[in-house]
Amino acid sequence: MNSNTKTAADIGEFGLIDQIQKLLPEIDHKDVIIGIGDDTAVLRIDDARAMLITCDIQVENQHFRLQNISPYQLGRRAVAVNLSDIAAMGGRPTFALVSLGFPKTMAAADFDDLIKGMRDHLAEFSAFIIGGNLSSTEKDLIIDITMMGEMNSRQCLTRRGAKAGDRIFVSGEPGTSGAGFYMLATYGKACPPELAHLVQKHLQPIPRIEIGQRLAQSGFATAMIDISDGIAPDLNHLCSMSHAGAELYQAKFPLPSGIDNVSSLSGIAPLQFALHSGEDYELLFTMKSNTPASIIKSIIDETGIAITEIGKILPQASGYCMIDSDKNRIPVQSEGWDHFRRKKPGSSMHSIP
Amino acid sequence: MNSNTKTAADIGEFGLIDQIQKLLPEIDHKDVIIGIGDDTAVLRIDDARAMLITCDIQVENQHFRLQNISPYQLGRRAVAVNLSDIAAMGGRPTFALVSLGFPKTMAAADFDDLIKGMRDHLAEFSAFIIGGNLSSTEKDLIIDITMMGEMNSRQCLTRRGAKAGDRIFVSGEPGTSGAGFYMLATYGKACPPELAHLVQKHLQPIPRIEIGQRLAQSGFATAMIDISDGIAPDLNHLCSMSHAGAELYQAKFPLPSGIDNVSSLSGIAPLQFALHSGEDYELLFTMKSNTPASIIKSIIDETGIAITEIGKILPQASGYCMIDSDKNRIPVQSEGWDHFRRKKPGSSMHSIP
Repeated sequence: MNSNTKTAADIGEFGLIDQIQKLLPEIDHKDVIIGIGDDTAVLRIDDARAMLITCDIQVENQHFRLQNISPYQLGRRAVAVNLSDIAAMGGRPTFALVSLGFPKTMAAADFDDLIKGMRDHLAEFSAFIIGGNLSSTEKDLIIDITMMGEMNSRQCLTRRGAKAGDRIFVSGEPGTSGAGFYMLATYGKACPPELAHLVQKHLQPIPRIEIGQRLAQSGFATAMIDISDGIAPDLNHLCSMSHAGAELYQAKFPLPSGIDNVSSLSGIAPLQFALHSGEDYELLFTMKSNTPASIIKSIIDETGIAITEIGKILPQASGYCMIDSDKNRIPVQSEGWDHFRRKKPGSSMHSIP
Repeated sequence: MNSNTKTAADIGEFGLIDQIQKLLPEIDHKDVIIGIGDDTAVLRIDDARAMLITCDIQVENQHFRLQNISPYQLGRRAVAVNLSDIAAMGGRPTFALVSLGFPKTMAAADFDDLIKGMRDHLAEFSAFIIGGNLSSTEKDLIIDITMMGEMNSRQCLTRRGAKAGDRIFVSGEPGTSGAGFYMLATYGKACPPELAHLVQKHLQPIPRIEIGQRLAQSGFATAMIDISDGIAPDLNHLCSMSHAGAELYQAKFPLPSGIDNVSSLSGIAPLQFALHSGEDYELLFTMKSNTPASIIKSIIDETGIAITEIGKILPQASGYCMIDSDKNRIPVQSEGWDHFRRKKPGSSMHSIP
């Protein structure tokens, strides 16, 4: 294929991001601590404080379907996805700007509910909307939120800090959202009640703000990312930014209750949901090998959220593998969802709630 | 009509903005100097510095048509529209976040050109992209830019500061963009060369960053807004935020060369372009009545851009009118383009380049 006729789909989301980075000048500015390539950009406010800033665009029929999610839930979800990026640096959310594109036929009451969902979820973290912009669209609803946060500039947790020997942890039960998406896409509102918790978690992910802040303040966390694409690709991002490899312990994965049912119904192995389905918005992070057990225990006790050790960072040359129940080392495929590819490699699990 | 069945189009863009403001809590935060309702939000960095932040969403076939503007021009234009909001506070642009939604079939080369246009226009103001997000869309290209800026927090020029007796000025030649849009929409690439400057200004508006900064630093400017909807609605915003009225001097309006030709072709009076067509991204501002002539003169001399006195701020009870060449006082209609109304009142001038 002639490179002049390549389309966005041919290059793929991560290819396009690489392309953008090549086109842009090297950032050399005293106030920019972190530019493109992490969960959020980080700007210096003064010697002690950093500002975090990130944006996330959600497009109807690409990220959500209005028959499956109410406008209020959608408002909360659009905010949650952005709050999760603030959580992944260890920050405290502060302010949001909201750009909305929507069809002229959208019901005014739905518009209100969308804004209320955003407002209410932000309020739970003492954050609020300070600006925005509106436009009409021909057909689809578009929500683009810019989320800001603040934190101690010396405590920012990026994707770059993992070192061989660091321990890998994850919050919650990754795979829940992907399993919930499968149920929603296949059964819609007829999902069996015993699996409704999976759908609920998919529709309303919970940003792990408090866990992120406690980890950043602990002094023992070395790198962090939120799980938007699946453990496999997101840990791969973290490893490649840290110039490291990793091994994962299959037997330790904290799979959600009901996942075996979803696996039977779908024919997709439980572990595949955790590794490749994404949109869990849990935190995946690394801790120094000498981290006292009391640190993780106190975070679990105080937040009530499971935190599980699932692997170890290795030197980059050791690669990226899973140790299965028979102690075999199996290379991990890092594929996750790519918005620009025509099809997700190997599956169709990505969530359009 | 039952209020439960109202659509976004029934309520209109400004109605929806009012609705959002009613739904959101009163902002009471030590770091928020200005929230929703001005050109940008303003956040306190420290005692001396303020951060400006604004976003603007541009949607294909609502704000632009790809047969009329190249991807590179479009990248520049999307940035210019946001830079203009920074100019309207008197700020210096710093950083941008870029959210893009685009169809999988978009040519990769066009994607590159779009980014290059943004990069190059930002670089002219020593500003750059520090983050962003990508998504696919079914059909239309969506560009949402969040633009940040910085300035002395005591010098911010809002829409609220105009007082009766203040003099009203405008930069450049408002109406140029609307006239250019008319030519582009009617004649496309067959526009007569002697009117091409109008089309060019429409496609590539120039943010008045330097003028904005000089006005903010002068100590004599009292309020400012950029002209996105037309002088009539934008001055109306400024007056209503300042609790003031205004009179405009028809004979003083700095109309662009060629406007009489466009008027003959279109049947639209020259003044109507300046008052109602919008997207000029010139600055409309008020100065204290005792402003020394040397201040405006030095800004004109140093920037090379025309600045014209076109009216005076009145007490609110005096209303909002135009003094025509026969000294009649004619009430000004404040309509401008509203993205959510089905039709622009009285004209179809809005620009979709």
